Amino acid sequence: MNDEINNILIIGSGNISWHLEKNFKKKNIIVSVIGARKFLESNSDKYKQEFKNKDLIIIAVIDSEISNISRIIYDEKLLGENKILVHTSGSMGIEIIKNKGENYGVFYPLQTFTKNKEIDFTKVPICIEANNLKTLNELNKIGKLLSDNIYEIDSSQRKQIHISAVFACNFVNHLIGISKQELNKKNIPFEILFPLIDETISKAKESNPFKSQTGPAIRGDIKTMESHIQDLENDERDIYKLLSQKIINKNKEL
Amino acid sequence: MNDEINNILIIGSGNISWHLEKNFKKKNIIVSVIGARKFLESNSDKYKQEFKNKDLIIIAVIDSEISNISRIIYDEKLLGENKILVHTSGSMGIEIIKNKGENYGVFYPLQTFTKNKEIDFTKVPICIEANNLKTLNELNKIGKLLSDNIYEIDSSQRKQIHISAVFACNFVNHLIGISKQELNKKNIPFEILFPLIDETISKAKESNPFKSQTGPAIRGDIKTMESHIQDLENDERDIYKLLSQKIINKNKEL
Repeated sequence: MNDEINNILIIGSGNISWHLEKNFKKKNIIVSVIGARKFLESNSDKYKQEFKNKDLIIIAVIDSEISNISRIIYDEKLLGENKILVHTSGSMGIEIIKNKGENYGVFYPLQTFTKNKEIDFTKVPICIEANNLKTLNELNKIGKLLSDNIYEIDSSQRKQIHISAVFACNFVNHLIGISKQELNKKNIPFEILFPLIDETISKAKESNPFKSQTGPAIRGDIKTMESHIQDLENDERDIYKLLSQKIINKNKEL
Repeated sequence: MNDEINNILIIGSGNISWHLEKNFKKKNIIVSVIGARKFLESNSDKYKQEFKNKDLIIIAVIDSEISNISRIIYDEKLLGENKILVHTSGSMGIEIIKNKGENYGVFYPLQTFTKNKEIDFTKVPICIEANNLKTLNELNKIGKLLSDNIYEIDSSQRKQIHISAVFACNFVNHLIGISKQELNKKNIPFEILFPLIDETISKAKESNPFKSQTGPAIRGDIKTMESHIQDLENDERDIYKLLSQKIINKNKEL
């Protein structure tokens, strides 16, 4: 095994791929990228050319294609001897790319990525897992080139992180979308909420958010809640009712 | 009317009162505070002493007590000639402290306040409203002493801001609480989510959050959603299902 990873192939050309390519190149790693569709349409000779001299193959495609692509890689014997195959998915286990005698793992950068919007990658937590210690060490080393925050995380933990991230990222984003939409209705600038949002996040990070909860639900202020519910439209009303109830439930548990 | 507000009485001793007192004092304004209960138990003579020479009376109590307290102030003729009475509530209209011939208004600092946790008050948006232009100007002037962000906001807008704030603050806080709770179950440090949370907020501020949404719901990734739902307990499962559905609905509207 050549202990240095110098030459990476990324399969997939989505958001994660875009950011990995950019940041590996900054560290003078040779990176090539092949789109998932193009990969699936390649023939054996084309494949072999793409994979030649690659130390690490990163499958960065939608979850449903990972298994298929790793199968082709193994069947066509594309992975060089002692080289490493990883996927980047938060929700898929390591076993989805399992293969006897090979080095494989997961290299999951925990961030919401947008193409063409650069971020400070040194802050991005990278969750790594591997089927043997040597591979884990390699992933740790290449991860540290990009980020200061490498976590060894098993598949069951990674799935839990992904669930948590849906709440803290996708759902939070939807709620902030609603807050902007409601302000727009009365021509109030969105910026008026920014200090509140910043302080909410800062407090939530520092403490147990359930214990530092504020607002009408936790105060049991039914009059205010009813008045808000009346003003909202269907979709937002459903959310308001459910989350207020859940805040009340949680408070009883504490 | 004495154009300078130099001497303030705050009725109520909660979170808002604590922060207003502290920050007015920093600006060399004389501030005294009387708790709501103590105020309600006072007699006429005691009242008159408390209100003597006050330029501005701030009612910072729970919504349900505002009307009652302002009624006592008017009935007992406690407000000096040409002096100003305001409340600090996001959800109550200005009319709740209306009285013929008096100067009254609203002075609503839009922030989630915690006692004993100081914040940079110059960033706190203060929403002001008044029954006449002169009072509005006074509130603007005293507001600018504390904050760089003074907004003239009518009662209907203020109510809308308060609704938006419930989504962007109380509900967001609950979701982040869930994300922490889920991580705890598998001994994963909460800090692993901080860069994701920060980037989520930064993106949501810069764009239309509905349009930059990511995650399983907007991808229509039913397999991942079902697998997450199976892993969650009742309360969190309800939230996961509802918010995923709402993300899908909103995406259809766009």
